[in-house]
Amino acid sequence: MATVTAITSTTREKLERARKAAGLLAQLSTEQKDTLLHQMADAIETNSSKILSANEEDLAHANLSGAMRDRLLLNASRIAEMAKSVRDVAALPDPVGEVIESWTRPNGLHIRKVRVPLGVVGIVYESRPNVTVDAAVLAFKTGNAAVLRGGKEASRSNGILAEVLTSVPGVPVGAIEVLDSSSRESVRELITARGLVDVVVPRGGPALITHVIENALVPVIETGAGNCHIFVDESADLDMAARIVINAKTQRPSVCNAAEKLLVHRSVAPIFLARIVKHLADAGVELRGDEETLKLAPNVSPATEQDWSEEYLRLCMAIRVASGLEEAIEHINRYSTKHSESIVTADENNAQKFLRLVDSAAVYWNASTRFTDGGEFGFGAEMGVSTQKLHCRGPFALRELTSSKYQIFGTGQVRT
Amino acid sequence: MATVTAITSTTREKLERARKAAGLLAQLSTEQKDTLLHQMADAIETNSSKILSANEEDLAHANLSGAMRDRLLLNASRIAEMAKSVRDVAALPDPVGEVIESWTRPNGLHIRKVRVPLGVVGIVYESRPNVTVDAAVLAFKTGNAAVLRGGKEASRSNGILAEVLTSVPGVPVGAIEVLDSSSRESVRELITARGLVDVVVPRGGPALITHVIENALVPVIETGAGNCHIFVDESADLDMAARIVINAKTQRPSVCNAAEKLLVHRSVAPIFLARIVKHLADAGVELRGDEETLKLAPNVSPATEQDWSEEYLRLCMAIRVASGLEEAIEHINRYSTKHSESIVTADENNAQKFLRLVDSAAVYWNASTRFTDGGEFGFGAEMGVSTQKLHCRGPFALRELTSSKYQIFGTGQVRT
Repeated sequence: MATVTAITSTTREKLERARKAAGLLAQLSTEQKDTLLHQMADAIETNSSKILSANEEDLAHANLSGAMRDRLLLNASRIAEMAKSVRDVAALPDPVGEVIESWTRPNGLHIRKVRVPLGVVGIVYESRPNVTVDAAVLAFKTGNAAVLRGGKEASRSNGILAEVLTSVPGVPVGAIEVLDSSSRESVRELITARGLVDVVVPRGGPALITHVIENALVPVIETGAGNCHIFVDESADLDMAARIVINAKTQRPSVCNAAEKLLVHRSVAPIFLARIVKHLADAGVELRGDEETLKLAPNVSPATEQDWSEEYLRLCMAIRVASGLEEAIEHINRYSTKHSESIVTADENNAQKFLRLVDSAAVYWNASTRFTDGGEFGFGAEMGVSTQKLHCRGPFALRELTSSKYQIFGTGQVRT
Repeated sequence: MATVTAITSTTREKLERARKAAGLLAQLSTEQKDTLLHQMADAIETNSSKILSANEEDLAHANLSGAMRDRLLLNASRIAEMAKSVRDVAALPDPVGEVIESWTRPNGLHIRKVRVPLGVVGIVYESRPNVTVDAAVLAFKTGNAAVLRGGKEASRSNGILAEVLTSVPGVPVGAIEVLDSSSRESVRELITARGLVDVVVPRGGPALITHVIENALVPVIETGAGNCHIFVDESADLDMAARIVINAKTQRPSVCNAAEKLLVHRSVAPIFLARIVKHLADAGVELRGDEETLKLAPNVSPATEQDWSEEYLRLCMAIRVASGLEEAIEHINRYSTKHSESIVTADENNAQKFLRLVDSAAVYWNASTRFTDGGEFGFGAEMGVSTQKLHCRGPFALRELTSSKYQIFGTGQVRT
């Protein structure tokens, strides 16, 4: 039996409620869950003024700058988006109950592998109230109890949102629990509660993710830092390459699937760099480069060793000239965070080699890295992008919030 | 980028060799891997005298009692079994390269989810040389590098076995690395080497598994303690129930899928207990029971609270009378290690309810819990039995030693 040590009674009560709720949630039919999800969406809309005033209070107390403040901010249209996203999740197929495989053994035992909820899913995140609703309903749709530990600046917004969602009659007590966000202690309690919590998903910046990984005793799905690369090969259509690089770098530089590094084949470097460096500089991108890049593009500043592994998350890009495909692949496998990488090439052999040898969650041929996203992949939702190899890799949503069990049907078989 | 801290240069060199080998192993074709596996099997046979003399030296230095000593012991027939098991693995289907799913998005992006090796797999185990070969070849077949850290008593046997396997020309340097087993330090190095090791599988007793889980920074597949239950329902065929209980308890009491607890429906308890208690006692099983059991079977000693969660791994069983199915399910979900549980009943509704509500990796209707095993499930091999819900649950073998990647084929798509 797993043991749970040094946990306050408040947190323990919440986790035990969640554990109990998980047992009930696992038994709800798809129809029951979807009906409740629609009622949750309605409840968000009905209670919008209550939600907005809690959010205003959060904003008044928070000491946050531009982008962080914007992530915390709710308004009428964002509330409407939240409610819509809950209805969208209700409309998605329910993976729970699916018979993944079944077979009969020579001794007559019939074995079925059935998809079941994970149980209790902990989510540790920052001050983004939309994650509260997102994570809670993805967990709910898959029959899991959600234990949420958001950023302290959003505590009032998160509290009221969970209250509104769980106020719907029929939602089991404990289905959505919110932990105290005033100290890091509740994070520790959540991520070490073996036996009460089945998996923890950290969503946020590198510091948060590292903290969870280093301290968790519960299994973790690591979500992703993205030091993403684009390699422009010798045979690339350079117009296409320029469009892809500019899109991947500038369309939304603060997200994990934005490109951070550009590798250019030596034979096209003179012509392509002249062009892309101007485009990127015009778009406000700060540029750094290796020695060869500096010779070809004098306005670029020198890259340090640190640049090759850094995830900028802003309008900054480092450029390296590569002797060919092999050097590009080697560079990527050395420095990338194994998130998303793309090759632009007209050579199918090179593309296949890149897709095979680059060890990342998503590998692209002739497309922007910005597509690594549950929505863009067609999953209808996203819980995060996994950069580990265990359980799931890349964008993950409903199916990845499930586990399986073996059900074995016998007629008295014993082992000899 | 993951960071690796405080690691000796010897271990670091081994892990870096394994990392490099993983890149090469991932590119081997099924045919290449199978040919090498057959040559490994041949090499085990050719070098049997060398292996046996290393093993004799291990035995001479080891201070081990009966069962432990037997697990360490190699002889001619065990060497032959080892070679056979390598050939058996060669004959199994290779999961690597399988296209798990593929689809095309409205924007024309074609997405393929492809099965790939995990990369570097660490295995921490006890003094069982057969695990060295087993784990190494399962990892090899799935294109993974194996880093092995066995028990110190088997260090000479493990060293020579790894040497023999990797002596086959064509096996990449680093494909099978053996860590120093003279101190626990190498365990810590292995399980904290994020960026160098992709997953760790602990195989052994509860102390070993707990140590790995509590100290690992690398993702772990927890393998299993089994506090397995059998519930004999009101409508059970009592002959069948007796056969199943005796088999599950006594056929091999030291393994994780052996039954440790017996729950009996109150209405059949008087007749069934009279019978089963005698059978079990005759088979040398020490019996403990709750108050109601004691009244019905006076030769049983009282069970303590500790008994309900203990995994005995020996000829001992605790018995409880249950008021019905609900109480049995509640008891199991409270005390079990979520490994294997069985209901014996003629009532299909009760069976279905049990299979649905009992939250364990393998749930049985009218069969012995002893079937929870990769071989018995038809996987042809077994790496362990997972008792966690992440990545895989229950017996796992080749497929579960893989991950996936997304390969995305575009024609210049950018995100708008």
